Amino acid sequence: MAALRTLGPKAAAALDEELMSSGAFSIDQLMEIAGLSCAQAMYLLSPPTKSRNILVACGPGNNGGDGLVAARHLHHFGYRPTMYFPKQGKNELYQRLRTQLEQLKVPFTDDFISAIGKTDYVIDAIFGFSFSGEVREPFPAVIKALAESKVPVLAVDAPSSWNIEEGPPKDGPGVGYQPTALISLTAPKPLVKWFKGRHFVGGRFVSREIAEKYGFDLPPYQGSDQVVEIGSQGEKL
Amino acid sequence: MAALRTLGPKAAAALDEELMSSGAFSIDQLMEIAGLSCAQAMYLLSPPTKSRNILVACGPGNNGGDGLVAARHLHHFGYRPTMYFPKQGKNELYQRLRTQLEQLKVPFTDDFISAIGKTDYVIDAIFGFSFSGEVREPFPAVIKALAESKVPVLAVDAPSSWNIEEGPPKDGPGVGYQPTALISLTAPKPLVKWFKGRHFVGGRFVSREIAEKYGFDLPPYQGSDQVVEIGSQGEKL
Repeated sequence: MAALRTLGPKAAAALDEELMSSGAFSIDQLMEIAGLSCAQAMYLLSPPTKSRNILVACGPGNNGGDGLVAARHLHHFGYRPTMYFPKQGKNELYQRLRTQLEQLKVPFTDDFISAIGKTDYVIDAIFGFSFSGEVREPFPAVIKALAESKVPVLAVDAPSSWNIEEGPPKDGPGVGYQPTALISLTAPKPLVKWFKGRHFVGGRFVSREIAEKYGFDLPPYQGSDQVVEIGSQGEKL
Repeated sequence: MAALRTLGPKAAAALDEELMSSGAFSIDQLMEIAGLSCAQAMYLLSPPTKSRNILVACGPGNNGGDGLVAARHLHHFGYRPTMYFPKQGKNELYQRLRTQLEQLKVPFTDDFISAIGKTDYVIDAIFGFSFSGEVREPFPAVIKALAESKVPVLAVDAPSSWNIEEGPPKDGPGVGYQPTALISLTAPKPLVKWFKGRHFVGGRFVSREIAEKYGFDLPPYQGSDQVVEIGSQGEKL
C-alpha cells in the first residue's frame, strides 16, 4: 500500500506556528495530546507488566517537552519512569512539566549511562523535527549509548541525530542507531524512508483541510484512539 | 461492590486550586485531558456511525470549557458537533477553544430548542461541580428541554441544575431531568447517589497520594485508557 505523504521540517515548523497563531492552540494543549499519544504508543509496545522501568531522555526543546508529558501519563498507567533531562529549555512550560513529575516523585538522573543499564525501555525525546547539524554536549555520549545498547528504544518524532530529510547520520555518535520503534507526531517525516522498526503516529489535532494545505495524509486513526500503528516506512497496515 | 468514595464541591474546588498552584498544571492541560475523556465516553456510548449529530450545550465556566474541548475531539472522531454556547466566560481560554472549533467549521447555534429536535445526542456541559442556587437565563428553557426531550444526553460532571450534594432539584426547570449517561471528572460527586444511567469517569491526572489526601478513590482505569465505565452510583463494574 502507498506510504502516507510525509511532512518536511519547514512545513512542520510552519504548521506548529499556524496552529498556535490563527489556530489559537496553546503549546500546553498540543504537547498534552502529543505526549499522551507517545505514552499510549509505549503501552502498545510493552505494557508495564512487561516493561515497568522506562528511562525517558529529554532534550531542551519541544521534543523533550513531549517526553516530559509522556512520562507523567506513563506514571498513571503503572510504569516507573526515570527522567534524564540535563539541559532544560528557557520556556517556563518545561519547569511546570518538570514540577508535575516531581510531585509524582518521578526520579531525575544525571547519569544516563548507568540508568540505561537498569531500564526495560528507553524513550528518546532528545531531538525532534527541528534538529539539524551537530549533536551538542552532553548528548553525544547518550546517543552513542542508544546506538550501542540492546535495550529497546521508542523514538519520538525522529531517532535523535538523524537528519529529518536525509535519515541516518554517516558519521558521529548516531552511526548505526536504529530504534526499535518510532512515533511520528502529526505525520511521518521524510526520514521514515530509512526506518525499519515498528511505527506509530500520534498527535491527533489537525483537520483534513490542514493536512491538505501542508501536503500530508491524515493518519488512519481508529475510533477515538489517539495513536495508530502504521508500516515502518509510513504505509498503512 | 462498594461505591467509589465521592468528591464534594469544596474538595473538588480545592483540588483544582492545588493542581494549578503547587501542581503546576495549566488549565489548558487539565481541560484538554478532561474534554478528551468526555469525547471518548461519547464514543463508548454511541459511535458516529450511529449518532453522527451531537449538540454540545456549554455553560459560561469550566464545565462549558470541557464541552468545547470535547466537541473538537468529537469532530476528529467523525462526529458532526453543533455548539450551543450562549454566554461566554471572561477567561481568554474560552475564546481560544471557540476559535479552534470555528477553524474546523463547527457550527454555533443560538436556538437550542430547534437544535435539540435535529440531533442524535446532547452533551450537557452547562453547569459543573461549582453550581449552586438558581439556574440563570438563558438556561432555564434549555434545562427544561433536556428534562422533557427523548433525545439521549451525556452530562459532564453533573446533570445541570442538580445540587452537587443533594441531587435532583425539587422545583424549577430541572425537575424530572435524569440524563442517559454521566461522565464524572476526576471522581464521582455526591449527586451520583440519585443517578440511574450509564456512568463513566474521566480526567486521569491525579495520583494515588492526591486521591488519598482529598478522600476519594482512584477510578479503575484500564491500561492506557483515559475513561472508564463504572456503576451508575459509582460502584466498580
